[in-house]
Amino acid sequence: MRHAVILAGGSGTRLWPASRQARPKQFITIGPKGQRLLNQAVDRGRAIAGANVTIVTVETQVAATRAVAPGVEVIGEPVGRNTAAAIGLAAATIALRDPDAVMAILPADQHVGDEAGLTRVLDQALAAVERDDVIGTLGITPTRAETGFGYLEVEAATPNTITPVLRFVEKPDRETAEHYVASGKYLWNAGMFFASARRLLSELDKHLAPTGQAVRDIAAGNVPAEEVYPTLTSISIDHAVMERVTRVVTIPASVGWDDVGSWAALPALIEPDSAGNAVVGDAVSLDSKNNVVFNDGDGLIVAVGVDDLVIVKSGDAILVMPRSAAQDLRRVVDELAKRGLSKYL
Amino acid sequence: MRHAVILAGGSGTRLWPASRQARPKQFITIGPKGQRLLNQAVDRGRAIAGANVTIVTVETQVAATRAVAPGVEVIGEPVGRNTAAAIGLAAATIALRDPDAVMAILPADQHVGDEAGLTRVLDQALAAVERDDVIGTLGITPTRAETGFGYLEVEAATPNTITPVLRFVEKPDRETAEHYVASGKYLWNAGMFFASARRLLSELDKHLAPTGQAVRDIAAGNVPAEEVYPTLTSISIDHAVMERVTRVVTIPASVGWDDVGSWAALPALIEPDSAGNAVVGDAVSLDSKNNVVFNDGDGLIVAVGVDDLVIVKSGDAILVMPRSAAQDLRRVVDELAKRGLSKYL
Repeated sequence: MRHAVILAGGSGTRLWPASRQARPKQFITIGPKGQRLLNQAVDRGRAIAGANVTIVTVETQVAATRAVAPGVEVIGEPVGRNTAAAIGLAAATIALRDPDAVMAILPADQHVGDEAGLTRVLDQALAAVERDDVIGTLGITPTRAETGFGYLEVEAATPNTITPVLRFVEKPDRETAEHYVASGKYLWNAGMFFASARRLLSELDKHLAPTGQAVRDIAAGNVPAEEVYPTLTSISIDHAVMERVTRVVTIPASVGWDDVGSWAALPALIEPDSAGNAVVGDAVSLDSKNNVVFNDGDGLIVAVGVDDLVIVKSGDAILVMPRSAAQDLRRVVDELAKRGLSKYL
Repeated sequence: MRHAVILAGGSGTRLWPASRQARPKQFITIGPKGQRLLNQAVDRGRAIAGANVTIVTVETQVAATRAVAPGVEVIGEPVGRNTAAAIGLAAATIALRDPDAVMAILPADQHVGDEAGLTRVLDQALAAVERDDVIGTLGITPTRAETGFGYLEVEAATPNTITPVLRFVEKPDRETAEHYVASGKYLWNAGMFFASARRLLSELDKHLAPTGQAVRDIAAGNVPAEEVYPTLTSISIDHAVMERVTRVVTIPASVGWDDVGSWAALPALIEPDSAGNAVVGDAVSLDSKNNVVFNDGDGLIVAVGVDDLVIVKSGDAILVMPRSAAQDLRRVVDELAKRGLSKYL
């Protein structure tokens, strides 16, 4: 059967203060649908897998996750151990009751403009898994020279066609990113994967054997998760498996995908007003342009005569910073922790 | 006896959103004392007049005023009619029970760095009223070429010396203000007056006769205030009386006085940090300089990498604007009203 695995392990730093340690990014309501990112991802999963949707998150967020996604199966990790362990644990858990499971693995904190288009591409990908037992990752046709994403190099990026990945490449610098986009041979690595549970576990056994064994033992209840899971290597599925498998495939797709990676990304998700202000919630901009204004509370934000700022109010915290510094929010959060202000994090 | 009259009729526009229509400037807690401006003014009055302190405010704010200044006499104006009427009403009311009253008239929304110094100057002024029945206004030795205040021209600004005012001058342009300050012959008109109640009422009779008669009739209960008071001319005591009296005096004083006229004035009242940020309440500034940050709530404001901004959170509203535009806040408030957002005003 087809399954969707939602990876909901985000830390909540890059969209602070809307995201917090106790309420990471996937809980934010953002985008035109007025839905939490997590619920958008669950709907995405249901479109391809019906009721077979499983969320993997850290134990501390299981209750909050169940509250916003009632009726969805939730697997709790004792601690976060990056995507290789999380996906392995989901694969092992699902394989126990459905040994022939094929899986689409979907991050919980992404924006997709064309959900129907994504459903078609994922259907195609899962069909290829069922037919040829391929293992792959979705490749998004780049719409800008983004330096915040990893890329997939391919021979030719023919849309909606299963294509071998020649190489995984890390986040490029500006010049390299521009070359990538101009070449037409590079795709964004969107962090969405497809594979059978069996294949995925077998690749884990080959490339990250202790994790492969551990997630099977944990899923079967043979070892206590809270003792074993924290000892696993914290490594992404890309580094641990995908880059080491000889023949990984991708499907180039244009589905209005974007990572909600920082406040600077908001204008890609929210139609900015005529002055370029991307506004979520109650806010007024006067003589102001190209600001990102986000207010998830009841009050009013008024921006007057300011440009290129991020202005966020969420809960008990307010953030004002230049858009150009939005990628740097982790440093700010670290600094707040250092100053004894962890209660705001 | 000596009396202090506190003028608390502010409208609450220039320090929005900390000041609102229903909670004007004098209710703001600001400055090193952690006291409301109104209570600071009442203490100022008590220092020269003991229990004889009277607050004049609009009827709609009488209850709120009594709540924050319990035990202080409050006179309610049916509507605001500027300072000539407000001072006249206070003088007539006080004169009924103390015909020989001498009065110091003090705005409710000002900052005084050297309260003891001000007390000495006001004592000196009231002694001159008792001795010579002078009528006058305090003259503050300018510390900058401020274009937001009116000035008093004098022959020579000898500190703490009763001096004739040659001329009242309106808010000057930058160049004129610089000339004023360089000349040493101009003082800031701080809006603090001293006179006997009898003299003040007699000057009103001379220069603004209908108001002189009306405030006496209202104080005596001969006419209904709510019918008569709204018909009075809305004019300042400066224009109505002081500029028309042949011999008005002033006392040049350096008492750390400042008008809390706009958010841009805050750095004069709050010791800025080493980066020039004037911060009130819970806020963190990182890589930021010369900002005015004001937070009268429980949460946290975080400013990162921004300069020369005003960032205010008060109640249900947040304002972000350049310091240079802070004088222009009335336009913003008008615009919010136009957009149907009066509930925030």
